Amino acid sequence: MSDSRAVMAALDELRGALAPERVVVDRDKLDDYGRDESDLGVHPPEVLVLAETAEEVKRVFAVATRHRLPVVPIGARSGKSGGTLALAGGIALSLERMSRILEIRPEDLTARVQPGVITGVFQQEVEKHGLFYPPDPNSADVCSMGGNVAENAGGPRALKYGVTREYVLGLEVVLPTGEILRVGRQTIKGVAGYDLTALLVGSEGTLGVVTEITVKLLPRPRHVSTALVVFKSVEDAARAISRVLASGVIPRCLELLDDVALQACAKSAPFKFPADAGAAVMVEADGNDEEGVFAEIVRIAELVQADAAGEVIVAQNEAQRRDIWETRKYLSVNLRGLHPLKLSEDIAVPRSRIPEMVRKTREIGAKHGFLVATYGHAGDGNLHANVLFDREDERPRVERAVGEVLRAAVDMGGTITGEHGVGLAKRDYLEYEQGKALVALQRRLKALFDPLGILNPGKIFPPE
Amino acid sequence: MSDSRAVMAALDELRGALAPERVVVDRDKLDDYGRDESDLGVHPPEVLVLAETAEEVKRVFAVATRHRLPVVPIGARSGKSGGTLALAGGIALSLERMSRILEIRPEDLTARVQPGVITGVFQQEVEKHGLFYPPDPNSADVCSMGGNVAENAGGPRALKYGVTREYVLGLEVVLPTGEILRVGRQTIKGVAGYDLTALLVGSEGTLGVVTEITVKLLPRPRHVSTALVVFKSVEDAARAISRVLASGVIPRCLELLDDVALQACAKSAPFKFPADAGAAVMVEADGNDEEGVFAEIVRIAELVQADAAGEVIVAQNEAQRRDIWETRKYLSVNLRGLHPLKLSEDIAVPRSRIPEMVRKTREIGAKHGFLVATYGHAGDGNLHANVLFDREDERPRVERAVGEVLRAAVDMGGTITGEHGVGLAKRDYLEYEQGKALVALQRRLKALFDPLGILNPGKIFPPE
Repeated sequence: MSDSRAVMAALDELRGALAPERVVVDRDKLDDYGRDESDLGVHPPEVLVLAETAEEVKRVFAVATRHRLPVVPIGARSGKSGGTLALAGGIALSLERMSRILEIRPEDLTARVQPGVITGVFQQEVEKHGLFYPPDPNSADVCSMGGNVAENAGGPRALKYGVTREYVLGLEVVLPTGEILRVGRQTIKGVAGYDLTALLVGSEGTLGVVTEITVKLLPRPRHVSTALVVFKSVEDAARAISRVLASGVIPRCLELLDDVALQACAKSAPFKFPADAGAAVMVEADGNDEEGVFAEIVRIAELVQADAAGEVIVAQNEAQRRDIWETRKYLSVNLRGLHPLKLSEDIAVPRSRIPEMVRKTREIGAKHGFLVATYGHAGDGNLHANVLFDREDERPRVERAVGEVLRAAVDMGGTITGEHGVGLAKRDYLEYEQGKALVALQRRLKALFDPLGILNPGKIFPPE
Repeated sequence: MSDSRAVMAALDELRGALAPERVVVDRDKLDDYGRDESDLGVHPPEVLVLAETAEEVKRVFAVATRHRLPVVPIGARSGKSGGTLALAGGIALSLERMSRILEIRPEDLTARVQPGVITGVFQQEVEKHGLFYPPDPNSADVCSMGGNVAENAGGPRALKYGVTREYVLGLEVVLPTGEILRVGRQTIKGVAGYDLTALLVGSEGTLGVVTEITVKLLPRPRHVSTALVVFKSVEDAARAISRVLASGVIPRCLELLDDVALQACAKSAPFKFPADAGAAVMVEADGNDEEGVFAEIVRIAELVQADAAGEVIVAQNEAQRRDIWETRKYLSVNLRGLHPLKLSEDIAVPRSRIPEMVRKTREIGAKHGFLVATYGHAGDGNLHANVLFDREDERPRVERAVGEVLRAAVDMGGTITGEHGVGLAKRDYLEYEQGKALVALQRRLKALFDPLGILNPGKIFPPE
């Protein structure tokens, strides 16, 4: 924790720099802001500030610099890798009040938003204009655009549409040194200078604090069709997925659920799976031409039929579509019905290695005595492997199992994180994936933006 | 130029470090390697080396470091912004011999190539596997994948498919300090650490030398349809383009040609335009479903009909399709039929400002007494404005006109370069677009990768 005199002095200055009611020291509040969805415990800050402008963010950095206090930027606290946990105390800087959609420009297919805008709210707003913001993290109802930028969030639709990075054209960012910069552009194309926008997207709140985001939009596809296919085994499902992709069809989503995931669904999901189902795949296609979309789903159905254990179920209306997605959406919660605790990973492997990776994950789980539920965005090789357990005292063993899963993913040419970020959760495995020299270069890059090391210390990189 | 004793000493060492026949000092050869497609004159290096491995590139940097000689990486010399001109002499490092396609993985939809692979050759190779590499710079027949990565190359299909950056998953790169690093990933998704891949793409050969590229591929769309529409004026054409985009249709290309461009086409292009044509738009749609693609072209035809000056001409076969594209492809060359010299720019503006920008460009040209031909990727706001002139002594005046065009683009919320890069051509305008603080940050970033400033000096940033 930070020096308490430094904190007291900083507190006074923060109250002068922002409205006093936006400088919070209430214990319960601090605890709330010391948690996220990573299941990595509570790491409360010593002060919470709720900034409303880039200028205020700059003032917070000035105070933090004077007193050498850490600053941890916070979005909606829905992160999965511990990126907003205040490991060393200090100042939590929440952007939640910067929640205005500043501009939607249908004629340019762009929009400008503040970082605290909830992603799902933004999606609904642009849809009113016939537009479409494709990134759809599972937490879209609660997560924020700023958090999505920090983590380079993905989601099921990334298969066809790509991740957050593909949609961010420009940013306003406040550097720890107090500079307020506008990087990137307002145009669809542009290559002037280094792509600092792409560098900042996915930098997990360690290089600067984003205070405005310009994104590219697409026209909203007029038709969507969703289907569900059940398989006897994950191997069958993986083979079917490969066949679809190899056929030249890229649907907008191809989501895999393994047998353990299906057991969890059985507890409460609206959708009832056959008792002997070993895996399921959710497919979604979209487009402007209703018949074309239907034709795509039919073609996919034909392609998977040889491996499937039953009929392809195509949602006939919006309610059925919602049922299918709710099954997927609440999977993470429903898994707790099988075992109260879980540690979730989000490895990605080359698509051809999916069956092998799923098998390997189970083997590692079994070796350590745990059930593993695997589901995720199989179409792009991004799998969420969840090690399920019952008691906190099992956690060290669970962590060893997870470590083996991460290393196995890297050994198959994959990555330790497909979309959740490194944060605190996986910092000890970054060097295994990238090597010492590359991590050292990134540390130097971090020091260029943050020479005093006050911004979100302890994240991404292992302690030296 | 560099100290001649340093060059002599370096030459000896280079001959020892690479095969002697790949260290070239022949005057004519050096002059050849001192030119590109930027029309910015001849800036020959003092030595040309033809590297064949990353290890050799590392050795070249070691020699350059010992003697403080500039190293300028060279691809296919087809750049438009002077990025490969050896402004300060030194060593030109050609990657043209590293021209192997290392791997095409249909099951993973990825490929690995060396930087010297010609983009068009790569496209043809992946198509044999039913795959598709979308970036299509106009120079695809001659430009190289490494050059495309350095410049973040675009092309007409960027409208639907995005630019090079969207397809590069990982790189092997040699830093000026001699480190050989692998950045990025082999998987479709991945967010481990900072996105150094995206930082290196478009860094115009100033941060490191790329020696291997892993790209993402798509399934090849089974059907393509191309159409040509003639308009009375650029305003009519721009309005039609806006209407298409606003309707929710994003074809794969939407290319604009203004009246001057059409006059140039009339000289030799296979396609004959009506004499009173004030503008033309080329449209291309693609997809897997033949009827869906046809329906898209029909829908676009309906949308543009109100503004068009005649019928929408849809190519009926591959030969007609080729004719339409040849018209576009040789435009740059054909413009010389109107006036022997030209200075070409590639500004981008928000799509809604296209008509205004085209008008403004003509006004600026007229004010300085020059004809301006504007064409380009209007669908994404990227316009190639060509100031045409007759004599070298007019160049200073042409440059003033171009400067005004660049500033006008920035003033409309646009950028000085949509896809050609800053290089030498536009380094004096970077601060106008980005401001001093952002340029200063990028200079520090450059120094982090290249502490001695030996890699491609004088590019992107204005001389201090």
